[in-house]
Amino acid sequence: MIQTPFYLIDSASLGRNMAIIDRLRAASGAKALLALKCFATWPAFDFMRDHMDGTTSSSLYELRLGREKFGKETHAYSVAWPDHEIDEAVSYADKIIFNSIGQLQRFKDRTGGIARGLRLNPGISTSGFDLADPARPFSRLGEWSAEKIESVLPDISGVMIHYNCENADFDLFNRQLAEIEGRFGAILRRLDWVSLGGGIHFTGDGYPVEKLAARLKDFAQRMGVQVYLEPGEAAITRSATLEVTVLDLLDNGKKLAIVDSSVEAHMLDLLIYRQSAKIEPDTGDHSYMICGKSCLAGDIFGEFRFKEPLKVGDRLSVVDAAGYTMVKKNWFNGVKMPGIVLRDPDGSLRVAREFGYADYASSLG
Amino acid sequence: MIQTPFYLIDSASLGRNMAIIDRLRAASGAKALLALKCFATWPAFDFMRDHMDGTTSSSLYELRLGREKFGKETHAYSVAWPDHEIDEAVSYADKIIFNSIGQLQRFKDRTGGIARGLRLNPGISTSGFDLADPARPFSRLGEWSAEKIESVLPDISGVMIHYNCENADFDLFNRQLAEIEGRFGAILRRLDWVSLGGGIHFTGDGYPVEKLAARLKDFAQRMGVQVYLEPGEAAITRSATLEVTVLDLLDNGKKLAIVDSSVEAHMLDLLIYRQSAKIEPDTGDHSYMICGKSCLAGDIFGEFRFKEPLKVGDRLSVVDAAGYTMVKKNWFNGVKMPGIVLRDPDGSLRVAREFGYADYASSLG
Repeated sequence: MIQTPFYLIDSASLGRNMAIIDRLRAASGAKALLALKCFATWPAFDFMRDHMDGTTSSSLYELRLGREKFGKETHAYSVAWPDHEIDEAVSYADKIIFNSIGQLQRFKDRTGGIARGLRLNPGISTSGFDLADPARPFSRLGEWSAEKIESVLPDISGVMIHYNCENADFDLFNRQLAEIEGRFGAILRRLDWVSLGGGIHFTGDGYPVEKLAARLKDFAQRMGVQVYLEPGEAAITRSATLEVTVLDLLDNGKKLAIVDSSVEAHMLDLLIYRQSAKIEPDTGDHSYMICGKSCLAGDIFGEFRFKEPLKVGDRLSVVDAAGYTMVKKNWFNGVKMPGIVLRDPDGSLRVAREFGYADYASSLG
Repeated sequence: MIQTPFYLIDSASLGRNMAIIDRLRAASGAKALLALKCFATWPAFDFMRDHMDGTTSSSLYELRLGREKFGKETHAYSVAWPDHEIDEAVSYADKIIFNSIGQLQRFKDRTGGIARGLRLNPGISTSGFDLADPARPFSRLGEWSAEKIESVLPDISGVMIHYNCENADFDLFNRQLAEIEGRFGAILRRLDWVSLGGGIHFTGDGYPVEKLAARLKDFAQRMGVQVYLEPGEAAITRSATLEVTVLDLLDNGKKLAIVDSSVEAHMLDLLIYRQSAKIEPDTGDHSYMICGKSCLAGDIFGEFRFKEPLKVGDRLSVVDAAGYTMVKKNWFNGVKMPGIVLRDPDGSLRVAREFGYADYASSLG
């Protein structure tokens, strides 16, 4: 019995997503790079490597992890590179994508050996959160001006356009891509490759994968480019749970159950975006607010229904815990950091990493 | 030259806070325990140990860190203890404070060798943030009912009442303590000790420390208890900076400077509470939005004024970076984690911890 808390990554669920990625790649000709900013739990890469073309990154360390742990094609993007990282970045990367023309010009002479690209900000996005909206006013994410980008076309062979965010609406994707073709088509036609970034939720239930494939193929042919996608959440959606145990039960006007985890420490985006976790099936006559064990008053996973009354020692599974969780877990309150466990194809559980007191203490000195 | 980013803890600034704590302890008779949930950077404990009475904690790992790295009196609090941690917790703790009567009863027989306490929730607080308000509706933090607490008085020798949050208003503290005396005085008089928790901003400029000391002394005498305070932010306020370097400059309708850090990864509370960082003196004719280098669109430290135009390579200091920063830093985007550097009393800088790729990779597998 593995002690909670731990993230449990299910290879079969990952495989379901990978099969859809395979279909999309085959039908569209697009390449798919795992966005490590969302999921970088490298012990799971063996289940993904045959179905994706490589990785993309947001920093030198992600880049190196992609090169060393995933392999295949490795894209290097960063909002800003410091001088002292650029040579090492080039040593790992197949392509380096600059966020600004300033960075491109600064490092042009040191990146001549690999393909160079630029982030293009189309001024549109699908994000419902200002915090996560790359097209927000004054956004620093990419170059907005077609004219300025045209002036550096000799120095780049492609662009990265990341503007979707959990976009499950193909028609919206289709319309926005048409808008991008209209406004930036003259630039795109002069390039070899275009990355459309991540945020297309094409592994979700009912997503019209074939329509997306046809649209991407048409885009690639008319622009004369190799298309890349950078799935993060789409690659790992619903492939992991956070396994926790009930430690205490209270009734302070509502029935409360405290578990051996913390939203802030282990599923931080729920706190940042003020969202509820998911616990399934969420049916039954017994309703509880499920709370974390940190000191934070608002450390709450959400309110859920259960068939039976909860007891101390009950095990709960918080679903959809793969994306943007392990990459930003932290030692807030010294709450035990969840281990990383894989459910292998034969159904057996394998502990890839446990965290203990020594890890906590060494995070602080 | 130490490479940015790094947290820089200034022993002289810590000393200023410690001197105030010494005054307060001497004049009030209260004991002061460092709240590790706020600051647990143990290489700095040598500057604090002679001026505080010990530590308090929110988990087994904080408790052990307090015992091993700080020493002196060690209080163990946790919102909920699992069965398998309680014996180890008892081995480190001088007092164990349970969050609920359920936990007290569950572990009564295994904690007989040390002093036991209970968290009392007075139903009032000074928090302006619902997220951080222990008196919010249905709060799981402590027992609310005087009647229920009275029923377990034979099993405890004290209570912990944490209800202040960056409270710089002595009159408000005074009034709320009077309210607590009125409602719970009959209980408090039957105890040996009362912790009033943290959140009293008594090291801030102009705080009437002597008035606070007199009020605490009066409270202790009338209730017949040893008073404890659990300063977190008050102990380390304005004693550290986050040192960063400008990597790129953009003008997207505003002048933007991108630095080699990230709000989400290195000063998380600014993001959670949607607050601006502080950079001083924040005067001059040149205004910039200072942005982090993560992929998050809202990774923004704030807008600040500077005397001269910023240049790539300029060094900036984000002030007031000690509390609730290092304890919750994380590897989001693989952004290089800031090192931990101490400015010793002789003015020299000493690197206590650097983080590198191996730390990043081992956080994920």
